[in-house]
Amino acid sequence: MTETAEQLLNFEPDDERYVAELTEYVAIPSVSRDADASTMRRAAEWIAEKIDFADPQIVETGGHPAVVGAWLGRPGAPTVLVYGHYDVQPTGALEEWVTPPFEMTRYTDPDSGEERLRGRGATDDKGPTYLAVETCRQFLGQEGALPLNVRFLFEGEEEIGSPHLASYVEAHPDALAADLVISADGAMWRPDEPSLSTASKGLLALDIEVTGADRDLHSGRYGGTVANPIHALAEILASLHHSDGRIAVAGFEDGIAPTSDGELAEIAAVAFDEEAYRTDLGVDELVGEPGLSTLARLWTRPTLEVNGITGGGAYTVIPRVASAHVTCRLVPGQDPLAVYDAVQRHVHAHTPAGVRVTTTHEPGPVPAYTIPADHPAIRAARAALEVVYPGEPVLLARIGGTLPATTLFEEVLGAKTLFFSFAFADEFHHAPNEFMRLRRLREGMRAWEALLRLLAEGEHRLGTAP
Amino acid sequence: MTETAEQLLNFEPDDERYVAELTEYVAIPSVSRDADASTMRRAAEWIAEKIDFADPQIVETGGHPAVVGAWLGRPGAPTVLVYGHYDVQPTGALEEWVTPPFEMTRYTDPDSGEERLRGRGATDDKGPTYLAVETCRQFLGQEGALPLNVRFLFEGEEEIGSPHLASYVEAHPDALAADLVISADGAMWRPDEPSLSTASKGLLALDIEVTGADRDLHSGRYGGTVANPIHALAEILASLHHSDGRIAVAGFEDGIAPTSDGELAEIAAVAFDEEAYRTDLGVDELVGEPGLSTLARLWTRPTLEVNGITGGGAYTVIPRVASAHVTCRLVPGQDPLAVYDAVQRHVHAHTPAGVRVTTTHEPGPVPAYTIPADHPAIRAARAALEVVYPGEPVLLARIGGTLPATTLFEEVLGAKTLFFSFAFADEFHHAPNEFMRLRRLREGMRAWEALLRLLAEGEHRLGTAP
Repeated sequence: MTETAEQLLNFEPDDERYVAELTEYVAIPSVSRDADASTMRRAAEWIAEKIDFADPQIVETGGHPAVVGAWLGRPGAPTVLVYGHYDVQPTGALEEWVTPPFEMTRYTDPDSGEERLRGRGATDDKGPTYLAVETCRQFLGQEGALPLNVRFLFEGEEEIGSPHLASYVEAHPDALAADLVISADGAMWRPDEPSLSTASKGLLALDIEVTGADRDLHSGRYGGTVANPIHALAEILASLHHSDGRIAVAGFEDGIAPTSDGELAEIAAVAFDEEAYRTDLGVDELVGEPGLSTLARLWTRPTLEVNGITGGGAYTVIPRVASAHVTCRLVPGQDPLAVYDAVQRHVHAHTPAGVRVTTTHEPGPVPAYTIPADHPAIRAARAALEVVYPGEPVLLARIGGTLPATTLFEEVLGAKTLFFSFAFADEFHHAPNEFMRLRRLREGMRAWEALLRLLAEGEHRLGTAP
Repeated sequence: MTETAEQLLNFEPDDERYVAELTEYVAIPSVSRDADASTMRRAAEWIAEKIDFADPQIVETGGHPAVVGAWLGRPGAPTVLVYGHYDVQPTGALEEWVTPPFEMTRYTDPDSGEERLRGRGATDDKGPTYLAVETCRQFLGQEGALPLNVRFLFEGEEEIGSPHLASYVEAHPDALAADLVISADGAMWRPDEPSLSTASKGLLALDIEVTGADRDLHSGRYGGTVANPIHALAEILASLHHSDGRIAVAGFEDGIAPTSDGELAEIAAVAFDEEAYRTDLGVDELVGEPGLSTLARLWTRPTLEVNGITGGGAYTVIPRVASAHVTCRLVPGQDPLAVYDAVQRHVHAHTPAGVRVTTTHEPGPVPAYTIPADHPAIRAARAALEVVYPGEPVLLARIGGTLPATTLFEEVLGAKTLFFSFAFADEFHHAPNEFMRLRRLREGMRAWEALLRLLAEGEHRLGTAP
């Protein structure tokens, strides 16, 4: 960091302007689930104006528009694509908010003494996007240039599953071409230590439907003579796991490389308080497949969870149909469609007589994603975090959740995605009273500055864009 | 029947008046689930007026009123209590009705050539009640007296589970005292042969609730580390039956006498087309515990059916809670609360680690009910049906459903209940286009005439009322 430390930007002496601008942005209630088109466009225009140095365009996607832009003033230098989203989650119950969700409020948390910014979108993803863009503006204002070429893609549908992102990216690979995607979305794992995500799990969602007679039946007039679809579904679902928690579906784990002793040792070295985790969940004991710690299961093992069941009701019926929704979280090596085939075979093989079963999977299953720990982007990001948090080791974490855009960017743009957000996982994402920690604004800007400098030259320099 | 055949009433030469009066009664939309109090009272007043010979009273019950009355002009003769209900089911989807539900329509069924009366309540229970009452009126009109003493109890809440019947009966045992209850509610088993019910199953309803963490969890962030209540519930439910269909709950069958070879032979002699039953249900095969015919299972064996399951939804959640509604149909010898204890013990013994389970049973579980085949009421009813259907053997059938009032009348009044309805099970009870077969009005009146005469004297005479 010696070479970059000499060239630090001069950020403003207090946070007033940053907070004022973010307040404006949060005030636009860009709830992608139900806002009208003009509200969504106002939010798109707000962030587009913030990248006025990059020839911003508001582009149609078939749903809410996206904002794209590019500053390509460093011919021969690497190119990064900064990703974020301007849409937000619905507020949920307004009476649960301490202050109105779209009036961003600066306050001091009495427990931690931290200054915080409360509002819908503050941390997901308006604050983290704002600080990335603001860093670029400061580069241009103070140095007249960015250290490398930067493209932007801010979508308006992240919170509703990005239904039009894939088709847009697939149609515009040249306009989005980059050596690396840097996501301003995401969140660090724990608020007490800097971390980077190096893996996220894949996702396969499927439904199982069991059908019996051609109509609902009176349980007295027909009970004991005809198969009950709920009994059959229970039998199928109970067969999906062994009693010790291991998944019982033959072929489910095909392709998974065993976790190495080195990886297990690394995970074992991560401070993780199982007792605090258990207490937080309010359960008597944690459960899962044997032989692995809770954190090792969370980070390295695939899962098959039944998320929903439905059938009949609280009256004397043998229902015509019973069904279940299932999601599998996948790890590297698993092919989502092969996993689906394995589950389907298992379900059919475990369906009792007298009922019919169908399985269907949701479109677009996602494989697991990884970025190697020695990828230049991870090394650069680690170095950038060390600038901001000197002396604090950077934890390489894995994500149990799924980040579909990573696969999209890898497949279409050939670029890995680095998650570089200054949101933290405890900041009430998607819930009432969402907040961002004020100091993360300034820490994030300094870290983005360092990251962009590091990726531009020296040992962490990215390869040249195609 | 020789003595009674000599004293037959002269019923009218055509059905015009009967149909006109029943049309009036059906026109009152006495839907106990949602009608207003004045509508319910109009229906109560209508049937009360029809028993003007019996000092009718409309009495408060805490819910919709009941209609009671008594003609006690035969001191020393037996007393019967005629039971029925003036309330009806909701219409369901109006667009499914061929004619308006409360405008009773006389029509000829094109398939059978039968004349029918279509309307809500026509067969459940306004028609069957009307013909019983009309028979009494004819006795008084033509003979100046009934053959025995008759009390009446018509409730207005049968279709909503008779929530106030028990407290009313328990508070007025003297006013309802009788040697026999004759229910004008119920239905013969099959339209092609006369039948009487000699048994109905008991009912125990219970709920199972499985709780995991203290909140819904993200299936990616927590999957594989904590028990999923749906998995636990599936395991519990799957454990309730053996794979061959037998109930796996230890103690469930305590107290049940084995079905005798004689009983099994009687059931085997009943014409029952398993293939037609299967085809009607639209299933590939019938299932149930081995070693018994479908009809033998239906008539002699208890059941445990899961009626409803609920938990989570079609999204990536590990839900906090999952639950099931279960009903058990009981046969003679089973104590409902002992069955509940057995199920509860089984559920707790089969609950996996990491979750909590609770079971609760609905109030008022009902034991099975039987009336012996050689009870005077059954013998008299059989003889009465032979008057109307000469040469047709009367089938003694059992009911898989539950008739809670039978237990109430036995416990409080010490009287067995004879079901003597001229509704048939195929007449769309509770469904759109409910109908009653026109000829059953006249057949029913003649049968009630014969029944009342037979119960009054001779070999089928009932014991004297307390």
